Amino acid sequence: MQRILSDQLTRHTGRTVRIAGWVHRRRLLKSVAFLIVRDAAGLAQVVVTDPAVRAEVEMLPEETVVEVVATVVTNAAAPGGSELTDPCVRPLGLPAEPPPFDLYRPDLAAALPTQLDHAPVALRHPTRSAALRISAAAVAGFRASLDARRFVEIHTPKVVASSTESGANVFALDWFGRPAYLAQSPQFYKQLMVGVFERVYEVGPVFRAEPHDTARHLAQYTSLDVELGFVTDHRDVMVVLRDTLAGMLDAVADRAGGALGTLGVAVPAVPAQIPAVHFSDALRIADAPADEPDLAPAHERALGEWARREHGSEFLFVTGYPMAKRPFYTHPDPARPGYSNGFDLLFRGLELVTGGQRLHRHADYLAALAARGEPVEPYAGYVDAFRHGMPPHGGFAIGLERLVARLTGAPNIRQVTPFPRDLHRLTP
Amino acid sequence: MQRILSDQLTRHTGRTVRIAGWVHRRRLLKSVAFLIVRDAAGLAQVVVTDPAVRAEVEMLPEETVVEVVATVVTNAAAPGGSELTDPCVRPLGLPAEPPPFDLYRPDLAAALPTQLDHAPVALRHPTRSAALRISAAAVAGFRASLDARRFVEIHTPKVVASSTESGANVFALDWFGRPAYLAQSPQFYKQLMVGVFERVYEVGPVFRAEPHDTARHLAQYTSLDVELGFVTDHRDVMVVLRDTLAGMLDAVADRAGGALGTLGVAVPAVPAQIPAVHFSDALRIADAPADEPDLAPAHERALGEWARREHGSEFLFVTGYPMAKRPFYTHPDPARPGYSNGFDLLFRGLELVTGGQRLHRHADYLAALAARGEPVEPYAGYVDAFRHGMPPHGGFAIGLERLVARLTGAPNIRQVTPFPRDLHRLTP
Repeated sequence: MQRILSDQLTRHTGRTVRIAGWVHRRRLLKSVAFLIVRDAAGLAQVVVTDPAVRAEVEMLPEETVVEVVATVVTNAAAPGGSELTDPCVRPLGLPAEPPPFDLYRPDLAAALPTQLDHAPVALRHPTRSAALRISAAAVAGFRASLDARRFVEIHTPKVVASSTESGANVFALDWFGRPAYLAQSPQFYKQLMVGVFERVYEVGPVFRAEPHDTARHLAQYTSLDVELGFVTDHRDVMVVLRDTLAGMLDAVADRAGGALGTLGVAVPAVPAQIPAVHFSDALRIADAPADEPDLAPAHERALGEWARREHGSEFLFVTGYPMAKRPFYTHPDPARPGYSNGFDLLFRGLELVTGGQRLHRHADYLAALAARGEPVEPYAGYVDAFRHGMPPHGGFAIGLERLVARLTGAPNIRQVTPFPRDLHRLTP
Repeated sequence: MQRILSDQLTRHTGRTVRIAGWVHRRRLLKSVAFLIVRDAAGLAQVVVTDPAVRAEVEMLPEETVVEVVATVVTNAAAPGGSELTDPCVRPLGLPAEPPPFDLYRPDLAAALPTQLDHAPVALRHPTRSAALRISAAAVAGFRASLDARRFVEIHTPKVVASSTESGANVFALDWFGRPAYLAQSPQFYKQLMVGVFERVYEVGPVFRAEPHDTARHLAQYTSLDVELGFVTDHRDVMVVLRDTLAGMLDAVADRAGGALGTLGVAVPAVPAQIPAVHFSDALRIADAPADEPDLAPAHERALGEWARREHGSEFLFVTGYPMAKRPFYTHPDPARPGYSNGFDLLFRGLELVTGGQRLHRHADYLAALAARGEPVEPYAGYVDAFRHGMPPHGGFAIGLERLVARLTGAPNIRQVTPFPRDLHRLTP
C-alpha cells in the first residue's frame, strides 16, 4: 500500500491508508488514546481504542518513527478535518530517546543556545521548520524573477588568494601549502561575469570573520548576489532589486502559505516604487549630525519608522552613501563626487541589501586604489579584466537569513538559520 | 530609445534600433566595413559605409564596449537573417586592450592554462560561455524536478569542527583561534535535515584537498546533494535519481538549446529504467579480478561500453559496492552483508553520482564506527541525532562540473568551470 501524507487524508475518507512519520505526541486518556503523527505535510490524529495497540503505543516515546495503517474517518475537531481509526502501528526504528525539550508544544520553550546545541531536533519544531520553508520559497522566487529577466546563474570560488574587500575580517586557510582566504563575497567574480553574460546571479555562502556577537550577524551566511551590465546608473539596479524582492515575497506567499500561517505572519507589500531618500536627507530625517559618514542602527530604525509613517512602506532606499564609507569599486555620483552611486535598502529599519553602480573603466580602478593607498597587485586578476572592455554595471546582495528573520519577526538571526556559525559556535 | 538584444533584430525590420555589446570582430574591406557586435543573446552584424563612421570603428579594438544606433534590414547571409545599416557607433568606455587570444575565431586556440590565467576574457568565448549556460540549465532542472516532488532546499555550514568523512584530504583553517575544516560534503547535514523535512536538497560548494592533478578532479566543485526519508532501500533513491537526471537533461534541452548548438552536442536520452548491475557482476563484465574492492577508471570505461552495447544506454547503475570501500554511514545489504546498499551511476563510463541507503539506527552508527576503529566523539553532534528517531533514508550527490564536462565532451573539467581551484591554481 502506497504511503500518503497527512494532508491527503480527507480525499481518502472511508478507506484504509498507510501513513508514516514521527510520534509528535501521545495523549493517553482513560478510555481512548490519541497518537499524533507528524510528517512532511503536517499532523495526523490516530485514535487508539484497542488495548493491545494502546500497549504498543505506550512503548513508543515522542519522536519515534512509525508507520500507521488505519481507516480515515471524518472528524471536524481533528487537524485537517479527518482522523484515523482502527490502526496498526509499527515502529520503523528503535524507540526514540526523548528530546531535551518538548516538540509538541506550540512554542519551543528551550532557550536559544539549548535549541542551537540540539539543532537537529529543535529544527523539527513546526515554528523552526516554517522559517526554513519560507527561506526556501524566497530563494526560489529570487531565481524565478531573475531567470525571467535573462540572468544566468553562476558558481564562483569560495577560496581566494587575497582578501576580497579589505584586509580585515577574513578567515585564513592553508591551500596546499599556500596562504588563502575564504571569500567574503562573490563581488569580483560576479562583476567579471557581467563581461560574459551581462546579467548574473549567485546563491551561495559567504564568510565574515567579524568578531561581532550580535543578534544580526553570522560568520557564514547565504548571500543572494546579482550583477547586471549596460545600466545607466544605480537607479537601473534599484528597479531590478525592487522587482526581485516583489518576486521573492510573491513566492513566499505562493509556496510557503502554510509556514506563514504557522508563524502568524503576513507578507508585506512591495510598493511599485520603493521610496528613496538621499543619504544627506536621511541624516536629517534620522536627526543625526550632518557630518556622520554612515548610518548607525538607531538611525536606520528612525528611517524605517519614517518610511512607514510618511510612505506606508516597510522598505526604504537610502541612496548616495559617502564614497569614504563604500568599497573602492564603488562608482561616484558624477554630480556630487563626495557621494556615491551606492545604496542600501532598509526593511523595517534594518539594512537588508547593499548595492550600487561599480566602476567600469580600468583607469578608474587604478585611481581608486591609489587614492586609498592600496596596492594594485593583490587585485590584479580582477582589475586587469577591466582593460578588455566592461560595460557600465552594478548590482546588489541580499542577506537571506536577515531577510527571513525580519520577515518572520525572529529577534535573533540564529533562529532562522539551520546550523549557525559565529564567534562561538562551530557545531553541530 | 530602449536597447534591444541581437536576437530581436528581425522583428524590428525597417526600424531604427539601439543595440549594445562588445566589438566581437571588425572586417575592414576596401569599400565596406563590417562590425560584429556580441551581446548576451548572440551576434549582430553592422554594415559601415560612411567614411567618418569607419574611421571611428577603426579606433575601437575588439572587446571594446559599444552602443550602436542603426536601421534593421533583411540579409539572409547575416547572423539571424538581419543586419544593421547606417549606424551611429558610440563607445561605452575606453578602447579595449586586445585580449591575449582571439575571441572571434570559432575555436579558442590558446592552451588551457593560458585560458585559465585569463579566465575573465576566455569565458567570453561562445564555446566557453555555452558550457556555463548548460550548467545553469542543468541546475535549474535539478531544482524543478525536486521541487515538484516536495523536496525542500537547504543551506548548510561549509566550515565544520571535524572532518566529514575521513581525516584525510581536508582544508584546515583558523576559526577565531580554533581549528576548523572546510566541509567535504553536506552529507551529515542533509541526513539530519531528513528528520525535519523528509526530503531535502542542496546546491553548494564542497572542498577536497586531494592532491590529484587530473583532468577530472577539482579542489572546489559544485555538489548537487539530495537526501530522502521513508525509503525501503537504495532502489527508491535510484528512482528519484533517474527522474532528477531526466529533468535536468530536459531542462538543458529546453533552456540551453542555443548553447547545445554552439557546442554541437545532443542531450542523451535517460532510459525509463536505467540498467543496473551488481558490483560482483560489474567486475566480471569489466574483466577485473573477482577480489577487487573497487572499480578503476578502466573498469568504468569498460562498463560504459558494455551498457551502450548491451542496453543502448549512456547511463549505468553499479549497485552493491563492497562495504569496505564505502563510508561508515553506508547501509549494508541485509542479504549480502559484505556488500552495501550503495551505488554509483556511471555516465559514459565515468562515475558521475554516488549514492545509497544510509544507516538510520543510533546503535548501528556506534557499531559501524567501532568496527572501523574510529572514535564517536568527533561525530557526536551527528550521531546523537539518531537517538531521536530517524526514518530509513538515502540519497545521492551529483558533481555538476563533471556532468557538464561529460555532456559537452570537454576533455578537462576545468574547461567547464569558470574559475577552477586545484592543487596549483588559486587565481584568478
